[in-house]
Amino acid sequence: MIRVAILGYGNIGRAAEQAIQSSPDMELAGVFHHNDCMNCIDADVVLVCTPTREVQKFATLLAARGICTVDSFDIHGQIWSLRSAMDTVCKTGKAVSIISAGWDPGSDSMVRALLMALAPKGLTYTNFGPGRSMGHTVAAKAVQGVKNALSMTIPLGTGIHRRMVYIELEQGADFKEVEAAILKDDYFAHDETHVIAVDSVDALNNVAHGVNLVRNGVSGETHNQRFEFNMAINNPALTGQVMVSCARAAIRLKERGEYGAKTMIELAPIDLLPGTTEELVRALV
Amino acid sequence: MIRVAILGYGNIGRAAEQAIQSSPDMELAGVFHHNDCMNCIDADVVLVCTPTREVQKFATLLAARGICTVDSFDIHGQIWSLRSAMDTVCKTGKAVSIISAGWDPGSDSMVRALLMALAPKGLTYTNFGPGRSMGHTVAAKAVQGVKNALSMTIPLGTGIHRRMVYIELEQGADFKEVEAAILKDDYFAHDETHVIAVDSVDALNNVAHGVNLVRNGVSGETHNQRFEFNMAINNPALTGQVMVSCARAAIRLKERGEYGAKTMIELAPIDLLPGTTEELVRALV
Repeated sequence: MIRVAILGYGNIGRAAEQAIQSSPDMELAGVFHHNDCMNCIDADVVLVCTPTREVQKFATLLAARGICTVDSFDIHGQIWSLRSAMDTVCKTGKAVSIISAGWDPGSDSMVRALLMALAPKGLTYTNFGPGRSMGHTVAAKAVQGVKNALSMTIPLGTGIHRRMVYIELEQGADFKEVEAAILKDDYFAHDETHVIAVDSVDALNNVAHGVNLVRNGVSGETHNQRFEFNMAINNPALTGQVMVSCARAAIRLKERGEYGAKTMIELAPIDLLPGTTEELVRALV
Repeated sequence: MIRVAILGYGNIGRAAEQAIQSSPDMELAGVFHHNDCMNCIDADVVLVCTPTREVQKFATLLAARGICTVDSFDIHGQIWSLRSAMDTVCKTGKAVSIISAGWDPGSDSMVRALLMALAPKGLTYTNFGPGRSMGHTVAAKAVQGVKNALSMTIPLGTGIHRRMVYIELEQGADFKEVEAAILKDDYFAHDETHVIAVDSVDALNNVAHGVNLVRNGVSGETHNQRFEFNMAINNPALTGQVMVSCARAAIRLKERGEYGAKTMIELAPIDLLPGTTEELVRALV
C-alpha cells in the first residue's frame, strides 16, 4: 500500500482524501495543516494542497528529505521555473515531484501534447468554463477589502475568456479600490475582467467546471484533421483525483530510480493507474 | 536527424512518408518492399507498414539486430502476446519497439488510460466511425473470391458497431460462400456484419474516419464526471503520423537505455514530440 499524506485541507485536500480512500492501492497517512509539514515525513508521498504560491516552499522541504510530492501549482508562466528548482531538490534528495498536476495545467496538458503529436501543424484552443476558477478565486479573496469572492471563467471561443468576479466587501472597504487591486493582479491583468459586488457569494457558489479543447491540424501533409476534448466536471473532485493518480506515478518513478521533477506531459498514462502492465494493456489498449 | 525507413508501401506507408518529410528532426532512410527487409538495417528506426499479420515477423528480424521498430498492429486480442514476444527480442537486441501505434489501438488507448485516471470508476464507450476500417478491409480483401472490398464501421452507440462490407467478386466466385467466409473471420465474427456485393468499390472509397470516446465516471466519491474525445480524420494520414511520432519516442527510449516493447499507454506524450523538455513544457503545460 502506498502511504499518502495530505498537506492543507481546503477544497482540494478534502477531495484528495476521498480519492485516496477510493484507491485500492493506497492508504491515508494523515491530513496535516501546513504548520505541521514535517509530520508528513512518515508518508511515501505528500499531496501539497496548500495555496499555489506556497507549494514550492513545502514541496522543497519534503523532497529534500526523500519524500515524493504532488502539487497542482497553476500559474502557467512559472511552471518551468518550479520544475527546474524542484528537479534539483529531488535529484539530491532521491525523490520524485509531480508538479502542476490538476486538470489545467495537468490532464489538459497531456491532451494538448497528444494532439500535437497527432497533427503537428495547426492551432489548439483551450476554452474553459463556464465555471469557477479556484486559482482566480483564491487570488481575488487575497485582495484587501474582499470578504468573500467567486471568479467565474466564461469561454469566448478561440481560447479567449472573460472573468466574472463576484465579491462580498469587508465592512468599510471601497469598491473602486478593491476593483482596481483585482484588475491589476497577474491572475486577471491579461483577460477581460468584470468585478461585481454582491450580498452573498455563497448563494452563487458551484464547483462545476468544464473545458472544450479543440485542435484542427495537419497530419503529414493531410489538412483538416479535427480533434475535440470536452469535460463537464466537479472541479476540486477532479483535481484531487488527478493528484492521487499522480501520487501513484511518483512512487512508480521513484521505484525505477527516475528521481526528479516532472510535469504530467512527462508521464506515461499507465503509471497513473493501479494494476500490472499486463492487466492495463489488456484492458485499455 | 533520426533516420527512419518504411517497410511496406500501402496507404499507411505512403502517409508515413509524408509525415517523415514534414518532421524537422527526421530524414527518410528509404522505402522498402517487405522482401528487402534487411536493407532497412541502415535506419535508426523502421516503420513496419506491412499487413498487420506480418508485423511480428519483420519487427522481430529488425529488433534482434538492434533496429527500433514501430508498427500499427491492430488485433486487440493479440496485443499483449505481441508485446511479450517483442519485449524479449528487444531486450536481447538492445532495441525499442513501439507496438499497436495507430489511433485505435494507439492514441485512443492513451485517452482511455487518461480518462480512467481522471475518474477511476465508471464506463468508457469507444464509438467508431462512420468510416472505413483499414484492418477489416484488408481482412475482407484476403478472403478467396473477393476482388476488392471496403469495410465500413457504423457506430450504434455504447461501443456497439455494425460492419458494412462492400465487395466486388472475382469472376466466377459464389457470393454465399464469400459471405460465409467473411462472417466467420475473427475480424467480423463478433459484430453485426452485412456483406453487400457491388459493381465498383472504388466508387465508394473514402478514407475519412472518426471516433467518439465517452466516459462518465467517479472522481474520488464524486459522480457524474463527464468526458468526451472526438475526432474526424483522414485515417491513413493519422496512422502514418502516429507511427512517425512514435518513431521519435522509440529513439528517445533507446537513448535512455529503456530497451523493450511498449504500447502507447506506456509512453509519455512529451516523447512523441520534437523539441527540448523546456520548450515543450513551456508550450504545452
